[in-house]
Amino acid sequence: MNVLVINAGSSSLKYQLYNMVDESVLAKGRVERIGMDSSILTHEVEGKPEVREVSEILEHTTAVRKVLDMLTNRRFGVLKSINDIQAVGHRIVHGGESFKQSVLIDADVKLEIKKLFDLAPLHNPAHMMGILAVEANLPDVPQAVVFDTAFHQTMPKSSYLYAIPMVLYNKHKIRRYGFHGTSHDYVSKQAAQFLGKPIEELKIVSCHIGNGASCTAILGGKSFDTSMGMTPLEGLMMGTRSGDLDPAIVPYTIGKEDLTLNEVNSMLNKHSGLMAISGISSDMREVVQAMEEGNESARLAFEMYTYRIRKYIGAYAAAMNGLDVILFTAGVGENSAPLRKKVCEGLTFLGVELDEERNQVRSDETRRITRDGSKVEALVVPTNEELLIARDTYSLLKAE
Amino acid sequence: MNVLVINAGSSSLKYQLYNMVDESVLAKGRVERIGMDSSILTHEVEGKPEVREVSEILEHTTAVRKVLDMLTNRRFGVLKSINDIQAVGHRIVHGGESFKQSVLIDADVKLEIKKLFDLAPLHNPAHMMGILAVEANLPDVPQAVVFDTAFHQTMPKSSYLYAIPMVLYNKHKIRRYGFHGTSHDYVSKQAAQFLGKPIEELKIVSCHIGNGASCTAILGGKSFDTSMGMTPLEGLMMGTRSGDLDPAIVPYTIGKEDLTLNEVNSMLNKHSGLMAISGISSDMREVVQAMEEGNESARLAFEMYTYRIRKYIGAYAAAMNGLDVILFTAGVGENSAPLRKKVCEGLTFLGVELDEERNQVRSDETRRITRDGSKVEALVVPTNEELLIARDTYSLLKAE
Repeated sequence: MNVLVINAGSSSLKYQLYNMVDESVLAKGRVERIGMDSSILTHEVEGKPEVREVSEILEHTTAVRKVLDMLTNRRFGVLKSINDIQAVGHRIVHGGESFKQSVLIDADVKLEIKKLFDLAPLHNPAHMMGILAVEANLPDVPQAVVFDTAFHQTMPKSSYLYAIPMVLYNKHKIRRYGFHGTSHDYVSKQAAQFLGKPIEELKIVSCHIGNGASCTAILGGKSFDTSMGMTPLEGLMMGTRSGDLDPAIVPYTIGKEDLTLNEVNSMLNKHSGLMAISGISSDMREVVQAMEEGNESARLAFEMYTYRIRKYIGAYAAAMNGLDVILFTAGVGENSAPLRKKVCEGLTFLGVELDEERNQVRSDETRRITRDGSKVEALVVPTNEELLIARDTYSLLKAE
Repeated sequence: MNVLVINAGSSSLKYQLYNMVDESVLAKGRVERIGMDSSILTHEVEGKPEVREVSEILEHTTAVRKVLDMLTNRRFGVLKSINDIQAVGHRIVHGGESFKQSVLIDADVKLEIKKLFDLAPLHNPAHMMGILAVEANLPDVPQAVVFDTAFHQTMPKSSYLYAIPMVLYNKHKIRRYGFHGTSHDYVSKQAAQFLGKPIEELKIVSCHIGNGASCTAILGGKSFDTSMGMTPLEGLMMGTRSGDLDPAIVPYTIGKEDLTLNEVNSMLNKHSGLMAISGISSDMREVVQAMEEGNESARLAFEMYTYRIRKYIGAYAAAMNGLDVILFTAGVGENSAPLRKKVCEGLTFLGVELDEERNQVRSDETRRITRDGSKVEALVVPTNEELLIARDTYSLLKAE
């Protein structure tokens, strides 16, 4: 059975086609600049040169058609016919309080996702365009939706409520939702398996550190608290996001710089974080390199970035009254040994004993980076959100 | 030598008169509703009935004159003449980056405080009115200013910078300042003395929990990080302040509810926190009582409030890579045994062993609330910001 995973943005659409028999990626790619004059479709098949096709793609239905054409193309394709796609899984950023797990799409689900447009105005409408575009092209293929927020629906009220007038929760559903849920869920289960311990007995802090970044306190396998909030802006310092700041800075800056609400959102989400402090890049690799070459702003950015991860780990250890395992995952978490070192070496008081050699190992496998006998263990667990969406989609279909 | 301590607000002026020989309070009181049609002066002398005087007090110079009249009043006063006041000390909320300690007032200092009006528009202009009012009434008496922010000026950049465009720091001085500095400084020194250990060797988290509330990581006697930020809004959940929240909630709420910047500030500072969640009161005593009577909103508010203190303690232990002492101070911290219990019982993983009996003791003295041998000690340390202002003022004068 083949599952097509779609991540639709407002002007982009990423895809990966999985063969679920062996979970292999048959093909992957992306359509960029949808709605602009020259859209670009990039298509990759393992072992073959990348294909780039420039054309005019004005909306998502055409984008999906182009992707299907490419997947069945005689020269670049991997499928004989579009009938070889048995299911489509979509990544949905915001499932609000309505979705506590992945579901197959029907009319009710679509209606519910529409109701959530307000909470994720940049993401959910784009995801819906992706769903409708697939529906138009593959009317008989079942589709599933997998939510970034669903895993965090187990948080207690004391974790998810903000201390603001309750009317804002009751009327506008303003609360902490958390994101990267698929990843936090997956890596925590992987870790328990790796350690050979029942997840129900573990206190885990999972650090998903990519361009976006979040920490989650996972108590007995369930999300207990997480650093991203109503939106992905809250929490850790990220590539271009500020993370936590005095909320009073928002109205202050709006007043001082005469910004619109969109401009202040854009500043905090797209022009802050690692980029703003280093002045160099939102990419941790470039920041670390500059730091190693003696750049002071890069050093400060690295210091701030890692300091905040450390504080969240400490906060979540206190939240769970204990800590057994720290997990690092996603682009930066999996690949930046300097970052993991900096985070861990400030946590010896908890019993984290980093093994410098293990920390340097590069691998696609789950691995331990603390010494044998370290009271708190630290692991690197590679995540793969597309595969997890494919798996959820596949499971839902099998359960039908 | 007698020192008059003044805390001037925009429509109020609190005062305490100290005899610095024995640090006794000769008299204290407050003027309220300055600028309104019936202002009220309340005056207290130990062992005598409180005096209330209603009159029209249109501005601060008159308010100070009324206070001086009262202090020298033949019936209610404690001084023969205003010449018996040797110095005046003012509480100033915001010292920005300019003031790293208390100073005697001169023309330069006044200019510098004026430059900081922008950072504390509600407080600093009012403090300045207090300074000028004293100057007008007591032109020959030296005055000192004691800043809530000064103690935190030792924080490293990685603690005080926000991950937003650096231009906002360079141009508008947007950064973490922290408040309650006088109190955090005092209680940490008290604790070291009580424990008989050099403060240079201690890792302390000081929890100043009053109507406003903040935690400070104090490393070797110096503020290393603190939960309040550019303004007192950030950090812990407070009586009426929200504390930390997703910064994206601010523009979202402005948009949804069509609020002005002032209205959103007012909502977050005056109508949030314990009040908003409990729906009962901003006063912890009333919330705890309601909780004990079975009120669910009160229970939730108490849970959120204490949970956040616990997270900050964990975060700051991670910030310092260790923790020796937790301090509780200010109205709630000194008096709420249920609060201290709830905070501490979730921190056994750090080695905090609460002694339930000691925690119940009410006293004006510094006291231990953990068991003998507890790896991390917890103390209650009464604070007294007015006395600290009097002491700083007195020291500055002696050093002249």
